Amino acid sequence: MIPRRHEISRLEAFSDAVFAIAITLLALTLQVPELTTVTPQALVTALASHWPSYLSFVLSFVTVLIAWVYHHRLLQGTKRAGTGLLYANGALLLVVSAVPFPTALLGAYLATPAASVAAAIYAGYIGLLNMIYNVLWWIVARPQGGTHLKGWRPPTSMLLSYLGFPCYLVAVAIAFRSPAASLLICGALWVLWTIMAPMPTAAQA
Amino acid sequence: MIPRRHEISRLEAFSDAVFAIAITLLALTLQVPELTTVTPQALVTALASHWPSYLSFVLSFVTVLIAWVYHHRLLQGTKRAGTGLLYANGALLLVVSAVPFPTALLGAYLATPAASVAAAIYAGYIGLLNMIYNVLWWIVARPQGGTHLKGWRPPTSMLLSYLGFPCYLVAVAIAFRSPAASLLICGALWVLWTIMAPMPTAAQA
Amino acid sequence: MIPRRHEISRLEAFSDAVFAIAITLLALTLQVPELTTVTPQALVTALASHWPSYLSFVLSFVTVLIAWVYHHRLLQGTKRAGTGLLYANGALLLVVSAVPFPTALLGAYLATPAASVAAAIYAGYIGLLNMIYNVLWWIVARPQGGTHLKGWRPPTSMLLSYLGFPCYLVAVAIAFRSPAASLLICGALWVLWTIMAPMPTAAQA
Amino acid sequence: MIPRRHEISRLEAFSDAVFAIAITLLALTLQVPELTTVTPQALVTALASHWPSYLSFVLSFVTVLIAWVYHHRLLQGTKRAGTGLLYANGALLLVVSAVPFPTALLGAYLATPAASVAAAIYAGYIGLLNMIYNVLWWIVARPQGGTHLKGWRPPTSMLLSYLGFPCYLVAVAIAFRSPAASLLICGALWVLWTIMAPMPTAAQA
Repeated sequence: MIPRRHEISRLEAFSDAVFAIAITLLALTLQVPELTTVTPQALVTALASHWPSYLSFVLSFVTVLIAWVYHHRLLQGTKRAGTGLLYANGALLLVVSAVPFPTALLGAYLATPAASVAAAIYAGYIGLLNMIYNVLWWIVARPQGGTHLKGWRPPTSMLLSYLGFPCYLVAVAIAFRSPAASLLICGALWVLWTIMAPMPTAAQA
Repeated sequence: MIPRRHEISRLEAFSDAVFAIAITLLALTLQVPELTTVTPQALVTALASHWPSYLSFVLSFVTVLIAWVYHHRLLQGTKRAGTGLLYANGALLLVVSAVPFPTALLGAYLATPAASVAAAIYAGYIGLLNMIYNVLWWIVARPQGGTHLKGWRPPTSMLLSYLGFPCYLVAVAIAFRSPAASLLICGALWVLWTIMAPMPTAAQA
Repeated sequence: MIPRRHEISRLEAFSDAVFAIAITLLALTLQVPELTTVTPQALVTALASHWPSYLSFVLSFVTVLIAWVYHHRLLQGTKRAGTGLLYANGALLLVVSAVPFPTALLGAYLATPAASVAAAIYAGYIGLLNMIYNVLWWIVARPQGGTHLKGWRPPTSMLLSYLGFPCYLVAVAIAFRSPAASLLICGALWVLWTIMAPMPTAAQA
Repeated sequence: MIPRRHEISRLEAFSDAVFAIAITLLALTLQVPELTTVTPQALVTALASHWPSYLSFVLSFVTVLIAWVYHHRLLQGTKRAGTGLLYANGALLLVVSAVPFPTALLGAYLATPAASVAAAIYAGYIGLLNMIYNVLWWIVARPQGGTHLKGWRPPTSMLLSYLGFPCYLVAVAIAFRSPAASLLICGALWVLWTIMAPMPTAAQA
C-alpha cells in the first residue's frame, strides 16, 4: 500500500529537519559580550576578541551544510530503508544535532592555553561524522545486499570520503602541536568535499 | 473536499516537526565548562566530569528517536483524526517537547548526592511518555470505534508497549536505591523497543 | 503557471514551521534549579518551588496548539493570499514566535509580589494573539472582497473568537486584583476554544 | 529520473526551514529581567528599560520575513541549481541563521554609550544580507548563463534591491553620529521592500 520509496522520503524529511535545526542552532554559540565599562571602544575590543567563536561558527556551518548535501545524494540513490541504514542514519543525526557543542567549545577555548584540547576534540568530532558517513556509503553501495537503486553508481566523492578519516586522525594528533594546523586540515577537507560534492546536474548526466 | 487522509498528513507533518525540533534541542543541554584556571589538563578534567550530561543526552536522543518511529507507525494505520486522537496526540507532543528538561536535570544531578531524585524523575517522565503511547494505541486499535485503516493489525510491539508502563514504575522506585539501575532499566527498555520496532518492510509484508 | 492554492500551501508550510518551533522552544523556559547544598530533599524543594514555570509552560503550549488548529482551519477556507492576509499572517507569526517571552516572565514572577504585572502582561499578550486572529477571520470571511473559497462558511467558532477579546481585557484588569483569576480566565477561554474548535470532520460535513 | 525542478524544491524546503527556525529563534533574544527587589513597580521599570530588545526583535523579524518572501520569488523563477546558486544560497543561509546575533547585540547596547557600534554592526549586517541577495538576483537573472525559467522577467524589486546596498553603507556611516537615524534607514528600507515585494498575484499576471 505504501511504496517503499515513500518510506525513504519520510526518513529524508525528518533528517532534513534535524540538519536544518542543528545548522541554525549553531548561531546560538555566538554570545553577546558583557562589559564592565560600556564604551564604544570596549565593545569593539570585546567583539574582536570573540573571533574564535565566529571562526568556529563558520567552520561548523559549512561542515553541516556539506553533510546535508552528501546526505541527500546518498538517500537519492537508495531504494529501501533497511535496519542497518536506519541505525546508521540515527547515529548520524545524533552526531549532527550535537555539532553545536564542540563548536561552542572551540569558540570558547581556541584563544586560550587549552586550545590544543578544544581543537583536538573538534577535529575528532568531525572525524566521527566522517566515519558514520563512510558506514552509510558502505551500507548503500556494497555490491551484495546494498540498498541502492538499479543503475546507481557510487560517486567518486564516496571514495574520497573514505580517505577523509585518516586525515581527521592526523588533524587530531597535530592539534596538540598546532591547533591552527588542525583546523586548517578540517577546513581544507571541506574545500575538498565541496569541490567533489556530487552535484545534482552531475548525478543526472 | 479535503480527503480525511490529508488531515492525518497535516497532523503527522506538525508532529514530525515537533519531534525533530525537540530531538535537536536536546543538544543544548550540553554545556561548555567554565574554568577558573585555563590549562589543557583542567579542560580535559572538566569535560570528563560532565559525563552525566553526555549520557543523558544520548539516552534521551534515542528515546525521542524511537518515539518518532513508533508515532509514524501508529499514524500510518490511522484513517481519521477523531477528537480523542487529537487530544492524546497533543498531550504526546507536550511531553516530547519538554524531554530536554528532565534530560538537563539528569545531566546536572546524576553525579551528585541528589542523583536518586533526578533519576526517579527521569524514569517517571519516560514512563509518562510510554503511558500516552498506550492511550494512543488503544484509541487507534480498539475493536469498536477504533480509527485504524481496514486490514491494519496492531503490531506485536503494541502489546509490549503496554508492558512498558509497569517497568517504568519499577525504574522510578528503584532510583531511590540505585540511580544507575533505574537508568539501566530505561536503557534496556529502549533496546527492547528498538528490536520490536515495527519496521516499514515488516509492516508491508 | 503557479496555481494560487499553491501559494497558500507555501504560506501554510512556513507558518506551520514557525508554530512548531515556537511551541517546542517553550520547553526552554523550564530551567534546571541550581542548588547551593545538593541533597535529594533540596532538589525536590527547588523543583516544587518552580511550579509557576510548569504551569505557564502548559498554558502556553495549549494556547499555541489551539492557535495552530485554528490557523489551519482559517487557511483551509482561503483561496488566495492577498496583501492584507499576508501582513496579518506575518503579524500573527511575530506574536506566536514571541510567546516564550511572556511565558518565561509568568514562570519567573507568578510566585512573587510582582505576580500581578506578570499575569496582566500574559493575559494581554494572549489577547493580542486573539485580536490578530479576529482580523484574519475578518479578512477571509468579509462578504465583499473576502478571500474565502466558494461554499465555505465561517464556523461558529469564528463568532466566539470575536467574543474572546473583551474577555482577555477583563483578564488583564482582574490580574491586578487576583493573578490566579486572570490565568483562570485564560485557561477557561482555551477550554472554550478547544470545545468549539472547527474539527476536520465537522468541516467536511 | 529526478526532474531538475525537484532539486530546486529540495533546496527551497531546506532554505525555508532555516528561515523559519532563524525567525523563531529571534525571540530567544528577549530576556526576562532579573530583579534584586521584586515589586510590581520594579518589574514594570525593568521591562520598560528593555525596549531596545523589543525594537531590535521586531526589526529583525520583519527583515527575515521579507528576506523569506524575496527568496521564494527568486527561486520560483529558477529552473536549475547551478554551483554558483548553491554557494550563494549557502552564504545567504549562513547570514540569515546568524541574524539573532546582531539583533541581541543591538538589544543589549542600543540604550548604552556603545549604541553607535551596535547600530553600525546591525546596519552593516543587514547590508551584507542585501549584498548576497544582489548576487543571487544577478546569478539567476543575467542575460547569458542565467538560470531563470523561460518567460520569467526580473521584477522591479530586483533593481531596487541593487539600490539598497549603498543605502546600508550610509546607514553604517551615520550610526556613529546617530544610531537612531541608522535604524530609521534600515526600517525605511524594509518598508520599501515590503511595498515593492513581488506579490504572488503580481507574478502571475
